[in-house]
Amino acid sequence: MRGKTGVYLIGALGSIATTVVTGALALRERMIPPIGMVTATDVFEGADLVRIEDLEFGGCDIRCATDEHPAGSDFDAGPIDPRIAEAVGPELRAILKGIHGGTATNCGEAIAGLAGCTRQDGGTLRDEIEEIRERLRRFRRLSRLDEVVVVNLASTEPPLEFEVCHEFPAALEACLDANRAEKIRASTLYAYAAIREGCPYVNFTPSNAALFPALVRLAEQCGVPVMGSDGKTGETLVKSALAPMFACRNLEVLSWEGFNILGNMDGRVLNHPQNKESKIRSKDRVLAKILGYAPHSRTGIDYVPSLDDQKTAWDFIHFRGFLGAKMSLQFTWQGYDSILAAPLVLDMVRLAEFALRRGEAGLMPHLALFFKTPMGVEEYSLEAQYRMLLDYANGVRTALRPVTGP
Amino acid sequence: MRGKTGVYLIGALGSIATTVVTGALALRERMIPPIGMVTATDVFEGADLVRIEDLEFGGCDIRCATDEHPAGSDFDAGPIDPRIAEAVGPELRAILKGIHGGTATNCGEAIAGLAGCTRQDGGTLRDEIEEIRERLRRFRRLSRLDEVVVVNLASTEPPLEFEVCHEFPAALEACLDANRAEKIRASTLYAYAAIREGCPYVNFTPSNAALFPALVRLAEQCGVPVMGSDGKTGETLVKSALAPMFACRNLEVLSWEGFNILGNMDGRVLNHPQNKESKIRSKDRVLAKILGYAPHSRTGIDYVPSLDDQKTAWDFIHFRGFLGAKMSLQFTWQGYDSILAAPLVLDMVRLAEFALRRGEAGLMPHLALFFKTPMGVEEYSLEAQYRMLLDYANGVRTALRPVTGP
Amino acid sequence: MRGKTGVYLIGALGSIATTVVTGALALRERMIPPIGMVTATDVFEGADLVRIEDLEFGGCDIRCATDEHPAGSDFDAGPIDPRIAEAVGPELRAILKGIHGGTATNCGEAIAGLAGCTRQDGGTLRDEIEEIRERLRRFRRLSRLDEVVVVNLASTEPPLEFEVCHEFPAALEACLDANRAEKIRASTLYAYAAIREGCPYVNFTPSNAALFPALVRLAEQCGVPVMGSDGKTGETLVKSALAPMFACRNLEVLSWEGFNILGNMDGRVLNHPQNKESKIRSKDRVLAKILGYAPHSRTGIDYVPSLDDQKTAWDFIHFRGFLGAKMSLQFTWQGYDSILAAPLVLDMVRLAEFALRRGEAGLMPHLALFFKTPMGVEEYSLEAQYRMLLDYANGVRTALRPVTGP
Amino acid sequence: MRGKTGVYLIGALGSIATTVVTGALALRERMIPPIGMVTATDVFEGADLVRIEDLEFGGCDIRCATDEHPAGSDFDAGPIDPRIAEAVGPELRAILKGIHGGTATNCGEAIAGLAGCTRQDGGTLRDEIEEIRERLRRFRRLSRLDEVVVVNLASTEPPLEFEVCHEFPAALEACLDANRAEKIRASTLYAYAAIREGCPYVNFTPSNAALFPALVRLAEQCGVPVMGSDGKTGETLVKSALAPMFACRNLEVLSWEGFNILGNMDGRVLNHPQNKESKIRSKDRVLAKILGYAPHSRTGIDYVPSLDDQKTAWDFIHFRGFLGAKMSLQFTWQGYDSILAAPLVLDMVRLAEFALRRGEAGLMPHLALFFKTPMGVEEYSLEAQYRMLLDYANGVRTALRPVTGP
Repeated sequence: MRGKTGVYLIGALGSIATTVVTGALALRERMIPPIGMVTATDVFEGADLVRIEDLEFGGCDIRCATDEHPAGSDFDAGPIDPRIAEAVGPELRAILKGIHGGTATNCGEAIAGLAGCTRQDGGTLRDEIEEIRERLRRFRRLSRLDEVVVVNLASTEPPLEFEVCHEFPAALEACLDANRAEKIRASTLYAYAAIREGCPYVNFTPSNAALFPALVRLAEQCGVPVMGSDGKTGETLVKSALAPMFACRNLEVLSWEGFNILGNMDGRVLNHPQNKESKIRSKDRVLAKILGYAPHSRTGIDYVPSLDDQKTAWDFIHFRGFLGAKMSLQFTWQGYDSILAAPLVLDMVRLAEFALRRGEAGLMPHLALFFKTPMGVEEYSLEAQYRMLLDYANGVRTALRPVTGP
Repeated sequence: MRGKTGVYLIGALGSIATTVVTGALALRERMIPPIGMVTATDVFEGADLVRIEDLEFGGCDIRCATDEHPAGSDFDAGPIDPRIAEAVGPELRAILKGIHGGTATNCGEAIAGLAGCTRQDGGTLRDEIEEIRERLRRFRRLSRLDEVVVVNLASTEPPLEFEVCHEFPAALEACLDANRAEKIRASTLYAYAAIREGCPYVNFTPSNAALFPALVRLAEQCGVPVMGSDGKTGETLVKSALAPMFACRNLEVLSWEGFNILGNMDGRVLNHPQNKESKIRSKDRVLAKILGYAPHSRTGIDYVPSLDDQKTAWDFIHFRGFLGAKMSLQFTWQGYDSILAAPLVLDMVRLAEFALRRGEAGLMPHLALFFKTPMGVEEYSLEAQYRMLLDYANGVRTALRPVTGP
Repeated sequence: MRGKTGVYLIGALGSIATTVVTGALALRERMIPPIGMVTATDVFEGADLVRIEDLEFGGCDIRCATDEHPAGSDFDAGPIDPRIAEAVGPELRAILKGIHGGTATNCGEAIAGLAGCTRQDGGTLRDEIEEIRERLRRFRRLSRLDEVVVVNLASTEPPLEFEVCHEFPAALEACLDANRAEKIRASTLYAYAAIREGCPYVNFTPSNAALFPALVRLAEQCGVPVMGSDGKTGETLVKSALAPMFACRNLEVLSWEGFNILGNMDGRVLNHPQNKESKIRSKDRVLAKILGYAPHSRTGIDYVPSLDDQKTAWDFIHFRGFLGAKMSLQFTWQGYDSILAAPLVLDMVRLAEFALRRGEAGLMPHLALFFKTPMGVEEYSLEAQYRMLLDYANGVRTALRPVTGP
Repeated sequence: MRGKTGVYLIGALGSIATTVVTGALALRERMIPPIGMVTATDVFEGADLVRIEDLEFGGCDIRCATDEHPAGSDFDAGPIDPRIAEAVGPELRAILKGIHGGTATNCGEAIAGLAGCTRQDGGTLRDEIEEIRERLRRFRRLSRLDEVVVVNLASTEPPLEFEVCHEFPAALEACLDANRAEKIRASTLYAYAAIREGCPYVNFTPSNAALFPALVRLAEQCGVPVMGSDGKTGETLVKSALAPMFACRNLEVLSWEGFNILGNMDGRVLNHPQNKESKIRSKDRVLAKILGYAPHSRTGIDYVPSLDDQKTAWDFIHFRGFLGAKMSLQFTWQGYDSILAAPLVLDMVRLAEFALRRGEAGLMPHLALFFKTPMGVEEYSLEAQYRMLLDYANGVRTALRPVTGP
């Protein structure tokens, strides 16, 4: 019989992480249907994915418990039915109490400003890595886990300019040996540690330091599945569904302006120009990839505290049709960021664990559907990405089907 | 060398028809690029489609010339660059002058109210059909056309309840012999005449009398390609691009409310409850087909004269995500109906002529992409429909590729 | 010392009524600030209005308690903070338990369909009136109330065509004597009973049977202040703020299309064409009054259950400016109907009780601000209506100011 | 008999200016009704304003004629009916040919980059002023004008930090004498010259150098009416109509986010951070003034070339109602900037000329309605501003009414 799988969340006190845990607990209690989870659809019927009941949650965060938030977490019921919040509350709080401090090495001011429970400085990068690895080993050992999947849900870091040490594992090792902290960010250390511990790793953030070519190559060498970057939960999701419409009808997109407002911690951190830069870079790739040309396009992000977790995006698409006529489509998206992200995290944990068991290593391109900038994938149309997942599921089912016969 | 192809437009003085002709003339003069035409993309590179330069336009309309509109047409430049309108004006007016009267047999009050130039009553259905066939033959003969493609662009008729005579060709023939006018509508007579004359026939309207199973079977027997119904140009186009997003992410659509306002002749006719009924039936099928369930959904249509041809649609989509949270997406579409429809008409004329030449008969499911309710097709997702067209194009190219070798 | 004032709510189990009571209780406990209440602003500082703490709530409803809703009410916390709902819950439920059955005489099918706890048939109109008056007297007596204000919050009734008996008190009396039930509706009986009992009466619904000229004249004769009709809480509120902008800038409104979707009981009842008719008539007057001409305008209302109390309205305003150019403004309003209505009810109760004490009788035009179709008022611009209230408040303060002198 | 009035436009080749002239010519030819002009409404019936037929246009611009734009102007028919454009074309072009070069002294990079036809450097500020005054005198003389009104329609300059020389006329004169170019901008020179020549002056731009306290005081001393700043034509117009709704209903505005996209020259210049700063400062004052507190609010402006003159603004208003519930209102404004601005320019020219004739001097607060930040006015509510204009009109009419009697 199969054992349990650990889910190690970086940024475990944030609102996505607490929603992931709340949802998993509510699913276990059969209080909610698995709406929003792709792995709960017919597509994966018969595939031997880990059950939600067999997940155990742990992780770290750079923030500490405060009086306001007993567990120091962002958790407030928000859009969640208070009866669910009440029912799972005790177990959720128990899990949050087990969250330990994290690292914020070279993460920039905005993130450093949040940090209350980071580890004591003084050690080298190698020391930090060893500490993270020890945490992962202890989580596996104490909870008697078969596997541990690591998911990066931390705040967006400023972008890193890539050099040779981000391309090749050996150069990366040398850089770590030399303790070149300016070449990496906190998320690099987690990814490196996870891969070295044989833990599948998912980068749900736009931080480019969290999964770069050298890390991917290392994952291939170590036989570990990894994937990123930047969970596709709102405006970009709609973009990747709508842009193909213009392409397949040969309508010329002249301008695509997007304006996002949000009020959660993500919004607060993105309010800092450097961190926002990471996000906007990630969002901007979609159109050019789908349309085959880059229309005039800007994506604005503003922090509007009163919105809390309810992200609102207005997009204005100006396009040209037959005989040169200009027309427009605009949309307003109003979605709870964490509610949209959480089921994807569970999906990816299940699929990453499955991939590891099947001996897959390196990038998991069939997860492109879940990311704003899916690594190693040139396909940005949502439906085409969905077909990639369907094809994978079909391939897997075929492979698993027992041979019957005389 | 290949000759010319005739395009016979039913409703030839309407705004879609005049935009089709204006656009074809402007393309011929190289005044505009072929934006909005799918057959002008790489997909059909190398396929031997008829050239726009080789199309000749004719047709009929139930309205007459008036003082206000010298040619009796809806044509006003609207969103079209006045320089284009001026340049193609003389040739456009010459073509419109050649448009003859049409039939409005059993089309309901709203349409009868428009009719100024219908044929004299007194004849039987068979007489009417013979007259239409003679028109088609004369068009072919006088313009020295290899083929004639018939496109129904007339106003939306009230829906017809189907009986046995709409199912089987023999029953239909008996019904025509018995002069049962209440069993058919004007659009039936055109379709029947076209098929009998070996002319491919496209129903761009939601009128269900314009192409029903008995007519499709007749087309199969006669070796004539046909397709319908209801050109997909606005709100439904967006719907068929967006609904798959909810499906593939396992988000539950609770309600999808649509509200359309438009001010052209189409809007004026749809202002009549019976005619509107045809349109709404056509729009309502999309969601259930894509989602696999039917959410609460209503589609309203209001006639707002000040908008002219600029159709505006507001859709509000209420959906449920993880942990039961309700979220929403709303969009506003502002498009010129005729501008969006015209290039599709040219696309379908080219593809229908091509299918006839290749010996295809009956429905053309690879044109599903162009219709709100594509006959004989269960696939309503825009991208999946687009792949059907790509597959057709690839198949054709492979078939046409000359065998080279020793 | 002043005593208590009773608030007698017709439709007391509906969501507006339960929100009124919840809010009053929360205000009393100082759990919330008086946001949304006009009488809580500086404007009424110093005016001797009844305190929220001195209000007592009672009323009737045609629905009974069910298992689902222990008190038979629409109350679900909805957008209200669960902590508030919990804190005031016991007292709210106690009040709801005291709500007795109501009458649905001649209210049409939609409303009759809801009725579970109507009084037994068999009596005459005069019997029904006497029963209501007795209820009001008992409420006053048992709760030791100085005054009782009656507020009609019941579902919208179908419109009544006015005749002579709706014009003059004597004719109305004769009609009641003759037991002509088809000339009145339930709301007429409540209004008549209230006026006869000397209770100020506010018609918060669009039902025109609830306050017609004969009743207003009767109120004048009896020295009772009354006002209506149709609380202005959403789309029409915005309309009355925006339409003056076009007027004062001499921009020509060509079309003003509104589309409302809502999911509460109000929406369910308005789903019936007759009842909807009342609402739409009420909404349609605003534009013509403000602009001085009637642009093309339609107001649609659809019942969308998933929205619950969150009314969503999309308005599209097409206007013409200088040199004939057409432009547009569209807005989307997303508001909780009951949350918006409840503070107005409290405002009007306070102002009606105040007017009674000051000896005012008949219509209270200074309350125009609160109504979609303020009776006896030709002014529909929101700001002009607000000035009417300011002028009243200033007049009152001046009157109250003690004369000081030598 | 009264003579002609000159209208001297700074930025005379820009799209507002060309629309002003086009409109005036079309009005003169009775091709259009005076939609959008407040002075054409009943309000001013009987007031002795200068007739549109009696206006003569002149002005200057820093750009030169190019091959593309024969007159060097922004003029393209845009939303204007081509028949009007054709009819007034010859006279418009004749006027544009008479436009001479302007000054761009200390206007920042963005504007300097546009300049083709500025005057030769080498002179002092006093020289520049004298040259402008000579232009104004010549315009008056050659066109035999009774009066000349100067309107600043130039591109937005970067904001100026105010010092003593911007407060007092004497200090300003000293600064001009000392040739301190860094203390002024081009718009200062025009304003100074206009006032010294006895020409009423209107600042239609947000540039704060164009009308500061020292200039207003000088205008008072010289008996010249002046007013500014920043024509209220779009988003801010709607804001000033909607914000009072929240105030008068005691609803708490939590956040008001605005996002403007536009594609004309104004947009191109505002794309520069310094110039944008001027605009945003001007827009931000409205809310705090109307609400009495400053909600979270940001106003974004992006340059989207494909939109040309069609400015599109999306505003999202988050507000709190009774019981703490959060709700929202969003609007999308789609208006042609020049079409909206042009009639206001004509209105203000007429009213400024009228004020001069009546002996008014200094600021014209009754024009508050036309400006985003009306100088010397604390009232920002649109309707209240409109009443200020009504009161002025009524006062004037009363004053003018001839005394009749024995």
